Amino acid sequence: MKILFLNGPNLNLLGQREPEIYGSTTLADIETWVRERAADFEAEIDFKQSNIEGELVNWIQEAQGNADVIVLNAAGFTHTSVAIRDAITAVAIPTIEIHLSNVQAREEFRHTSMIAPVCSGLIAGFGANSYVLAVDAAVIVNADKKS
Amino acid sequence: MKILFLNGPNLNLLGQREPEIYGSTTLADIETWVRERAADFEAEIDFKQSNIEGELVNWIQEAQGNADVIVLNAAGFTHTSVAIRDAITAVAIPTIEIHLSNVQAREEFRHTSMIAPVCSGLIAGFGANSYVLAVDAAVIVNADKKS
Amino acid sequence: MKILFLNGPNLNLLGQREPEIYGSTTLADIETWVRERAADFEAEIDFKQSNIEGELVNWIQEAQGNADVIVLNAAGFTHTSVAIRDAITAVAIPTIEIHLSNVQAREEFRHTSMIAPVCSGLIAGFGANSYVLAVDAAVIVNADKKS
Amino acid sequence: MKILFLNGPNLNLLGQREPEIYGSTTLADIETWVRERAADFEAEIDFKQSNIEGELVNWIQEAQGNADVIVLNAAGFTHTSVAIRDAITAVAIPTIEIHLSNVQAREEFRHTSMIAPVCSGLIAGFGANSYVLAVDAAVIVNADKKS
Amino acid sequence: MKILFLNGPNLNLLGQREPEIYGSTTLADIETWVRERAADFEAEIDFKQSNIEGELVNWIQEAQGNADVIVLNAAGFTHTSVAIRDAITAVAIPTIEIHLSNVQAREEFRHTSMIAPVCSGLIAGFGANSYVLAVDAAVIVNADKKS
Amino acid sequence: MKILFLNGPNLNLLGQREPEIYGSTTLADIETWVRERAADFEAEIDFKQSNIEGELVNWIQEAQGNADVIVLNAAGFTHTSVAIRDAITAVAIPTIEIHLSNVQAREEFRHTSMIAPVCSGLIAGFGANSYVLAVDAAVIVNADKKS
Amino acid sequence: MKILFLNGPNLNLLGQREPEIYGSTTLADIETWVRERAADFEAEIDFKQSNIEGELVNWIQEAQGNADVIVLNAAGFTHTSVAIRDAITAVAIPTIEIHLSNVQAREEFRHTSMIAPVCSGLIAGFGANSYVLAVDAAVIVNADKKS
Amino acid sequence: MKILFLNGPNLNLLGQREPEIYGSTTLADIETWVRERAADFEAEIDFKQSNIEGELVNWIQEAQGNADVIVLNAAGFTHTSVAIRDAITAVAIPTIEIHLSNVQAREEFRHTSMIAPVCSGLIAGFGANSYVLAVDAAVIVNADKKS
Amino acid sequence: MKILFLNGPNLNLLGQREPEIYGSTTLADIETWVRERAADFEAEIDFKQSNIEGELVNWIQEAQGNADVIVLNAAGFTHTSVAIRDAITAVAIPTIEIHLSNVQAREEFRHTSMIAPVCSGLIAGFGANSYVLAVDAAVIVNADKKS
Amino acid sequence: MKILFLNGPNLNLLGQREPEIYGSTTLADIETWVRERAADFEAEIDFKQSNIEGELVNWIQEAQGNADVIVLNAAGFTHTSVAIRDAITAVAIPTIEIHLSNVQAREEFRHTSMIAPVCSGLIAGFGANSYVLAVDAAVIVNADKKS
Amino acid sequence: MKILFLNGPNLNLLGQREPEIYGSTTLADIETWVRERAADFEAEIDFKQSNIEGELVNWIQEAQGNADVIVLNAAGFTHTSVAIRDAITAVAIPTIEIHLSNVQAREEFRHTSMIAPVCSGLIAGFGANSYVLAVDAAVIVNADKKS
Amino acid sequence: MKILFLNGPNLNLLGQREPEIYGSTTLADIETWVRERAADFEAEIDFKQSNIEGELVNWIQEAQGNADVIVLNAAGFTHTSVAIRDAITAVAIPTIEIHLSNVQAREEFRHTSMIAPVCSGLIAGFGANSYVLAVDAAVIVNADKKS
Repeated sequence: MKILFLNGPNLNLLGQREPEIYGSTTLADIETWVRERAADFEAEIDFKQSNIEGELVNWIQEAQGNADVIVLNAAGFTHTSVAIRDAITAVAIPTIEIHLSNVQAREEFRHTSMIAPVCSGLIAGFGANSYVLAVDAAVIVNADKKS
Repeated sequence: MKILFLNGPNLNLLGQREPEIYGSTTLADIETWVRERAADFEAEIDFKQSNIEGELVNWIQEAQGNADVIVLNAAGFTHTSVAIRDAITAVAIPTIEIHLSNVQAREEFRHTSMIAPVCSGLIAGFGANSYVLAVDAAVIVNADKKS
Repeated sequence: MKILFLNGPNLNLLGQREPEIYGSTTLADIETWVRERAADFEAEIDFKQSNIEGELVNWIQEAQGNADVIVLNAAGFTHTSVAIRDAITAVAIPTIEIHLSNVQAREEFRHTSMIAPVCSGLIAGFGANSYVLAVDAAVIVNADKKS
Repeated sequence: MKILFLNGPNLNLLGQREPEIYGSTTLADIETWVRERAADFEAEIDFKQSNIEGELVNWIQEAQGNADVIVLNAAGFTHTSVAIRDAITAVAIPTIEIHLSNVQAREEFRHTSMIAPVCSGLIAGFGANSYVLAVDAAVIVNADKKS
Repeated sequence: MKILFLNGPNLNLLGQREPEIYGSTTLADIETWVRERAADFEAEIDFKQSNIEGELVNWIQEAQGNADVIVLNAAGFTHTSVAIRDAITAVAIPTIEIHLSNVQAREEFRHTSMIAPVCSGLIAGFGANSYVLAVDAAVIVNADKKS
Repeated sequence: MKILFLNGPNLNLLGQREPEIYGSTTLADIETWVRERAADFEAEIDFKQSNIEGELVNWIQEAQGNADVIVLNAAGFTHTSVAIRDAITAVAIPTIEIHLSNVQAREEFRHTSMIAPVCSGLIAGFGANSYVLAVDAAVIVNADKKS
Repeated sequence: MKILFLNGPNLNLLGQREPEIYGSTTLADIETWVRERAADFEAEIDFKQSNIEGELVNWIQEAQGNADVIVLNAAGFTHTSVAIRDAITAVAIPTIEIHLSNVQAREEFRHTSMIAPVCSGLIAGFGANSYVLAVDAAVIVNADKKS
Repeated sequence: MKILFLNGPNLNLLGQREPEIYGSTTLADIETWVRERAADFEAEIDFKQSNIEGELVNWIQEAQGNADVIVLNAAGFTHTSVAIRDAITAVAIPTIEIHLSNVQAREEFRHTSMIAPVCSGLIAGFGANSYVLAVDAAVIVNADKKS
Repeated sequence: MKILFLNGPNLNLLGQREPEIYGSTTLADIETWVRERAADFEAEIDFKQSNIEGELVNWIQEAQGNADVIVLNAAGFTHTSVAIRDAITAVAIPTIEIHLSNVQAREEFRHTSMIAPVCSGLIAGFGANSYVLAVDAAVIVNADKKS
Repeated sequence: MKILFLNGPNLNLLGQREPEIYGSTTLADIETWVRERAADFEAEIDFKQSNIEGELVNWIQEAQGNADVIVLNAAGFTHTSVAIRDAITAVAIPTIEIHLSNVQAREEFRHTSMIAPVCSGLIAGFGANSYVLAVDAAVIVNADKKS
Repeated sequence: MKILFLNGPNLNLLGQREPEIYGSTTLADIETWVRERAADFEAEIDFKQSNIEGELVNWIQEAQGNADVIVLNAAGFTHTSVAIRDAITAVAIPTIEIHLSNVQAREEFRHTSMIAPVCSGLIAGFGANSYVLAVDAAVIVNADKKS
Repeated sequence: MKILFLNGPNLNLLGQREPEIYGSTTLADIETWVRERAADFEAEIDFKQSNIEGELVNWIQEAQGNADVIVLNAAGFTHTSVAIRDAITAVAIPTIEIHLSNVQAREEFRHTSMIAPVCSGLIAGFGANSYVLAVDAAVIVNADKKS
């Protein structure tokens, strides 16, 4: 089983600034934890980040035949990107939307997700653990798909 | 560690009607799976359901001192209940909002949650597995609280 | 054939206050007229009232196997209750929404019904006669269901 | 007692296309059933249809002195016609709004009725039987008017 | 100078019902007063009423070459008719919008006029005298057009 | 008979800037024409202008016993002033709202009038002639008040 | 004179959690102070709390003949409950809406009150003293009712 | 193959006023060009215009069995007519919405089309050529229907 | 202790018009009652009224060092004045918003208060007694400030 | 004559997935058909696709001097891209908006086009034939530009 | 060159309260800095403040012939004053809107400016330096006007 | 001191088209003027432009440690880009939003800025001089940061 983790804009900055305030967990740390958890299920992980909407669209398209489940933290594109939404619909690979923070507790414009209606499920608010939980969720979604 | 699972209106009907269409998983089945998963963490589970908003408010209040984390599937009350929201705020026990289905892919009025802004995190769209994932998430949230 | 009449909050007060203004028809009077009309069709009537949303949800759930049609005057819950809506959907018993008054001619917030989209039909504005007409309508809806 | 049934745009097409899908009941059939039911009450029926908003306005105006109750299925004009609304107010004949389908379960723009606030009552969602129930309702409304 | 007075739906009913309440002034009375006032200016009057939107559009179109100013009480069509608005724009004859009542003091939906933005001016709230004042206003507008 | 003309902010600038574009009619010219027209009816005119909302409120209050009708061009205060609205209601002197231009053909925020719902009538779009027409209208409104 | 104090959801938790932050005043303390103040007026106090909307509706209904004024802190039900609103209207006992905090300074959804339009008056923002002020206000309202 | 071209209100005025500004193309010119283009495909053309909404509804209804495709420029009715929308749905003949101008670049109220959701396609902004392009489009739509 | 009572537009008219309808209580009467009640607490009263928004702003500014609490009935300015809101914030004197009537039961635009979010508390709907209750409330607020 | 066809995100996937459901027409097929049709007019075609918004902006900018008309299927960027809109305005090359499907019959957010107001015309709903019709339309628009 | 600086409500309080929190810069300090900066350009400065909307309108009117550029910090009137907007339009003197704080980062109602659409430019968020930057900007705007 | 100037989509076209209409100032000219002004303050300038949202995000991220202040003309991305907003928040470098034109005087959708709430200040409407003023503003903001 292959899981593709895609990370949207500014997630590459995680843990790089003022660790005493924001914590020192980097995206690389998260990737490591994801790979460890995935090893329990013998799942293969691809883990990418981009600040460019179109590059995320490209990667979703390329996932056809190369991934069983997509785990997507679209960050700032979550609330506006029709292109990412349409890519998910087009490739028809089950996709799980995740967020580090509880977006419903933040600014009004973050309460709307363009992507959620075409995803299988949503995990948000558990910090780096949202990613780890998503590994388990991906395994579940993949099993459902097969049955 | 103690986790309180609260279920809102109509969840008691799960699996009782037309199993060939909706599946035959009952709320009792889900409770069993939750208890099994919780056993891995030596977590104690309380698991309740009510169709009455005020009863859910009562149970949240009574959780003070009796639960470390609440996992709440408020079902139809999710979108309208200020009382449940205020109860969560008042008891200050970390609460995880869960849903069987991906509510963002359903009717417009289900896209708004009165409860999400006062919860720690959200898991939705994985069917009965939303509950099982929530056990793991509760363990994580509880650990965060202590650190 | 069995018809379950459910009455929401404050309908128990009908006819008990200032009869010279509001009329002296009580909910008991209405029940009598409903039973008389139902007798013409040899239909069995169950007739209940509650001020508690969850109790109405319970009664709708218990109607499975015990009623062929539900006639529901949800009163103040009409405009806000997702729980009642979901109960109607869950039990899949044909439901007729009724109102004493013409709600569209009253305050703006009464123009929206959470319940109407999951009901078979709607009768409003005929006072106590809305209930009597609903007996006929229930017979029709039940016949449709069978054909 | 005289009842005027007015039918708005496209209702003349009922039952004329693909009867295996939409049913074969025509507006003429409905008129027959209405007349039969009305005979029970010795009520006189006038039954008309037009695709032209102004013609419906004309007929409502001409009802003065010629009808005791109007039963109106304004179809597509329901949601937009101030002219029909004003005609009903002007002639002050009790008017019952009816619909074949449950309009609240259809597109958003069909949830608003320009006409409802000036009608006595509303019957919707019972197919052709909405018309038959309206005969009974008209008798009730007429009796109320006299008392 | 020629002035075309156009009257929309239901204005033909003026003064014909319950004169003790609504007054006994008929549209014919108003026409007489308009003609008397117009005589002071040696203005020619054409005075028409229709309940059909398209007929009003036709008359506006036919006014080209036959009228110097249009005075329009579009009644219920005021708030919805793009067709009448476009007709006024197309013929480019100065048009004065009038109303018997103060529409801003009535229901919310009467506060919006589709027609006002393409009219020269507006007179509302003076009952039958709105028409008489409009004769003077038409003379003014016509003089402006020439200068 | 006494008519009080009140003019709101910036109307004192009329005709003082770039007469080749905006015309050279000043507020003093308009006052002269108003007085001439009023002389035909032997009506007494008071004619004032202020840029201060509260001063207009004061003048409306002082009109009690000193004016039979108020003609009000509230200019920029038209769209926002609850204080002027309440003053009109409090003194219960019939008030006519006037505007030089057709406000419905200008910016969106000018389409709403806080004042219109408490006025007797409205005249707009006839330039300086809106004032002259308002003299006639005031005479009509005053006559109505007496009858 | 009898005053019924009704308290909505979560008010039973007052003063029970983190008194160093929220203060240690309990609902029982407030009841004591209310009774003391009421003694000055020889007014009888009934003081109740419930987390269940329908129970509050029941108590309002039972107040008929048993209370001269109702003082209602509906808490979270303030913003959504049509049932409580309708109960107040039905029993026609003067009702005073109170709140501990200044709800207008909190979240947007707390700015709307379903209940305010059917209450006599409103007191908010004075903490426990809102209740004590309400005793005085109830005496005033009761005196008004009699005169 | 038969194509029915229907034209809504005011399109009969095309080219008849100030040709130096608006161009001198008349609706008759457009009809000629449409017939010429249709001749290339041996398609039969019916070409009609009406200012009356109900007449357009009638013609759409009569198209059953008499037209393979409808090309509809509903002009001002585009934005408001539920009746025309329902007629298109009822006859189930593929319909192409066309406009002379680019309606999205005009007033806000022209950005909404009641008709578009039930049409096959849309062509707008090419002046008289919108009609000629629609002939080709109709041929395509007709071919699709058959395959 | 010093309390500044500020009254907004049109409150000077209280009791001066048609006392048989609106009552004969004047603002001077209210001032007397306020002073009497204040005497019980040995509080000093300043009591002012203006129809000019900026004058109210001036008085709020001048209250610095001269008043412990402000009681403000901003009347028509309540719903629109950012300037008064900012003045209250700037001087940081606790302010109590009061109204004679229950503004929530009046027109829609009166349901929004620009001032409430920066006030300590709100008293509305008790007529002249709103002022007397505000004296007590001011004493409470002042005591809170000191503790 | 040169025509630039620009294709937005996900259009590169056309025909590559489940051809039995979505059809097997690829974007390359469409390009072939476009070139064939263009050959009839001796028009030169440039045909590009990108998933990156900024790349589409670049290509629009580079079209200056290199294209007479742009045909743009902006896909998901249609509804949100101010950058593409501004690019079209800046280069002032006539642009035709096209869509494969009838976007007005899809989700609400697809009903708004940021791009339409700055385009010459719009063709939508004819599948691959929208592109072929656009060749004809481009020839027409180009001819208009020259005249 | 003459520049008129106008300051709206509450700006006179700057620096007078709690300097340890809000800073000790007064409006007089700002005026000094503005005059110093203006001296570099040999520009003459007039610098005024008022809490009364109408006084600001008066000063804008009086600027005709007396100022080349207006710099306006309308403070609380920014969001509501049509009168100030109309005054700016009427005098046609280039006007620069300034704010001490970044208003877009404050409450929702401060995001709308009634004045911005009729101003030349906007400077906000630089504290007292917004005024100094405005001197430079005024020189630029004045030079543009002349060229 | 180092200032990073970032320019969004289409700004590279400045001055390249129809200089007789839009002026001949290019972005290179502006860069020259910015560098000249910066030289007065011995500030170092980096000046970049991109049509790709993600590239702007990248540059903002890379500014950490390389720039003291960012001056950002996000052009069309101003109104929609959450990604740029989040990047500004993440790097915590003071950012000044600038625009050539007064965006508040243009289309409605340009009145909202996603970026403004996280910027220090805003300068708009002074053409190329908005950039030069921003150099001074950047020096001020930088000095504030240090103090």
